[in-house]
Amino acid sequence: MTGVRVAGVGLTEFGEHAGRTGRDLFAEAANVALRDAGVDRERVEQLNYGNFMGALAERQSHQAPLMAEAAGLHCPATRYEEACASAGVAVREAVRAVRAGEVDVAVAGGMERMTNLSTERVTESLAVAADELFEVRAGVTFPGAYALMARRYFDRFGGDQTDLAHVASKNHTHALDNEYAQYQREVSVEETLDAPTVASPLGLFDACPVTDGASALVLVSEAAAQRHDLTAPVAITGTGQGSDRAALQDRETIAETPAARRAATAAYDDAGITADDVAVAEVHDCFTIAEVFALESLGLYEPGEAVGAARRGETTRDGELPVNLSGGLKAKGHPVGATGGSQIAELTRLLRGDHPNSEWVSDAEVGVTHNAGGTVASAVVHVLEVAG
Amino acid sequence: MTGVRVAGVGLTEFGEHAGRTGRDLFAEAANVALRDAGVDRERVEQLNYGNFMGALAERQSHQAPLMAEAAGLHCPATRYEEACASAGVAVREAVRAVRAGEVDVAVAGGMERMTNLSTERVTESLAVAADELFEVRAGVTFPGAYALMARRYFDRFGGDQTDLAHVASKNHTHALDNEYAQYQREVSVEETLDAPTVASPLGLFDACPVTDGASALVLVSEAAAQRHDLTAPVAITGTGQGSDRAALQDRETIAETPAARRAATAAYDDAGITADDVAVAEVHDCFTIAEVFALESLGLYEPGEAVGAARRGETTRDGELPVNLSGGLKAKGHPVGATGGSQIAELTRLLRGDHPNSEWVSDAEVGVTHNAGGTVASAVVHVLEVAG
Repeated sequence: MTGVRVAGVGLTEFGEHAGRTGRDLFAEAANVALRDAGVDRERVEQLNYGNFMGALAERQSHQAPLMAEAAGLHCPATRYEEACASAGVAVREAVRAVRAGEVDVAVAGGMERMTNLSTERVTESLAVAADELFEVRAGVTFPGAYALMARRYFDRFGGDQTDLAHVASKNHTHALDNEYAQYQREVSVEETLDAPTVASPLGLFDACPVTDGASALVLVSEAAAQRHDLTAPVAITGTGQGSDRAALQDRETIAETPAARRAATAAYDDAGITADDVAVAEVHDCFTIAEVFALESLGLYEPGEAVGAARRGETTRDGELPVNLSGGLKAKGHPVGATGGSQIAELTRLLRGDHPNSEWVSDAEVGVTHNAGGTVASAVVHVLEVAG
Repeated sequence: MTGVRVAGVGLTEFGEHAGRTGRDLFAEAANVALRDAGVDRERVEQLNYGNFMGALAERQSHQAPLMAEAAGLHCPATRYEEACASAGVAVREAVRAVRAGEVDVAVAGGMERMTNLSTERVTESLAVAADELFEVRAGVTFPGAYALMARRYFDRFGGDQTDLAHVASKNHTHALDNEYAQYQREVSVEETLDAPTVASPLGLFDACPVTDGASALVLVSEAAAQRHDLTAPVAITGTGQGSDRAALQDRETIAETPAARRAATAAYDDAGITADDVAVAEVHDCFTIAEVFALESLGLYEPGEAVGAARRGETTRDGELPVNLSGGLKAKGHPVGATGGSQIAELTRLLRGDHPNSEWVSDAEVGVTHNAGGTVASAVVHVLEVAG
């Protein structure tokens, strides 16, 4: 099996793109990625595309061939849907196809339009990622579900709202210089604690925003990178995926996210690394508590230890293990179907040195991304390494 | 790379399943497939699941982990959506994962619930497979789109409604003994021609029905089949996928379906066969004219020649090249997200000798399946061979 390199990354600004279509957004990201890679679009052999709520937001499913067309690609195109991990699985399957030698050059990423929906409609549309029969009909929405998980975590391990407020504040600080971020503004711990409660113990600033945006990666085999003299210093060396029961009530515990632990274990095994090797991480902080779950599932912290990480300054940009230097879903934004690709694009930029926050991780050789669907009924973890 | 065997197949009855959930249907198909394979569910390493309109029909996306749970599987689960080719791409990616050695045992298939929707809602929901901006807003629905394609075909190559009526009648005859078929009843050529017009030149019996149902396959590596002494006499030896522009108006021709030709060429190359080797085919006859396009794209007929194939008795069960011995989408039914898996399940049964129609193809060694999305903006072709 061949190694897989990230030859190019492309992102749209994350935020509100009123009046632009989904295909327009994805084409922009794909074009940026292809230009970044220096790869001619005729060489692309496969498009793996993530989207979550297109049927509801744009009355458009079957988006993969549309996106290929918009991006000027003439190749088989497939849509992946795994709630908020849609682009994560799309990238994962592209990684597997490249390293199996099925294709030499793939584009993978995703897109979501959300801000065109009313608040009520966007809440309804996000809810289709939960268990309709056993959660949604009982009134559970995602802020409520993550609030339940946070309460259970606090009960079992300790931690409080101030710990979580430090996660929010940290990620907003990280987003300050990120030109793609939806919110390039500071949010203090106090401001977070003073914000209106959404679902106790989570307040408004514990939640990620509603976002439009797209992401794209150009993935190539090492052989193709050499043959075409591509500058592709970052390799994807590990990929892992895990699933869990969809409804919280059906799980043995909700103070942990075992699907992500399984995904991380698989990805580390795949890459031949351990959690100790990881120097930087982009994780799925749809809510502040979700970052805590992510860090523990990734084995970067023992259960119960991650909740204070931001407060202790360990996961801040000047800490030992900077987490979500992009700003995370929290401040950079969360266009659901694009997020998994965006995390890998941001981590690639961080590792190759052209991210506004690269200075904080100039010695980093190994990073991970963690992308989750629903209340982590699905999880995808990737290991990225500087390969020279 | 290892070979891939179909170790087990599972189907629900196709038809109306009022009062049953999607997860219930898929669990039934998966359980039948696992029992058929004699594979313990703990050995399944990956679930590839196809579904098209779950967000609209059941307000349920993120279905893959739900389906794994319902089927008692504890493995990564991914949903694929490619309109009516959703299960086709799900199976294709499972085939690739098995032969790359990523997993030894995968379950692949799909499910759709449709009959719970009103006629108006089901039409709206199917329309999200077309180009919303450039087709749907202009009033194009799928019967209308295929009618345009049929008219263009007739103009260019000849053929008439009677030719198409023979396709309908043939597939209904084939479905007579299929215990899974939605319509186990004869429909004569005259009855088809007398049926109400839906979109000229297509009448009611030129169209497939609205269907609930599920399909599942157990795919294993040759090594695993030997190791566990599985009876798996049918191999998937070739897989191919093609995409095209979504909107008919954007294509160079609508009297052919180039995406399917590309998929077929890739699948034949992959298997090391030619169209001449094919002895039996299950193709995507969502409308009678679609079977004509399929046979020409598969290289089984020259352009313009397939329209008379059923009328000439070549593709009937006693013909030289039996097509849609299952009854096809036309008579067996078309639960959109399940269809691509159902085709492979039916062809497997035909080739291994336990299909009610196996007697008509007792000497067949090679068969193909052809699964299409929308107006063939997406296509997936698989080659199946008797491997002993």
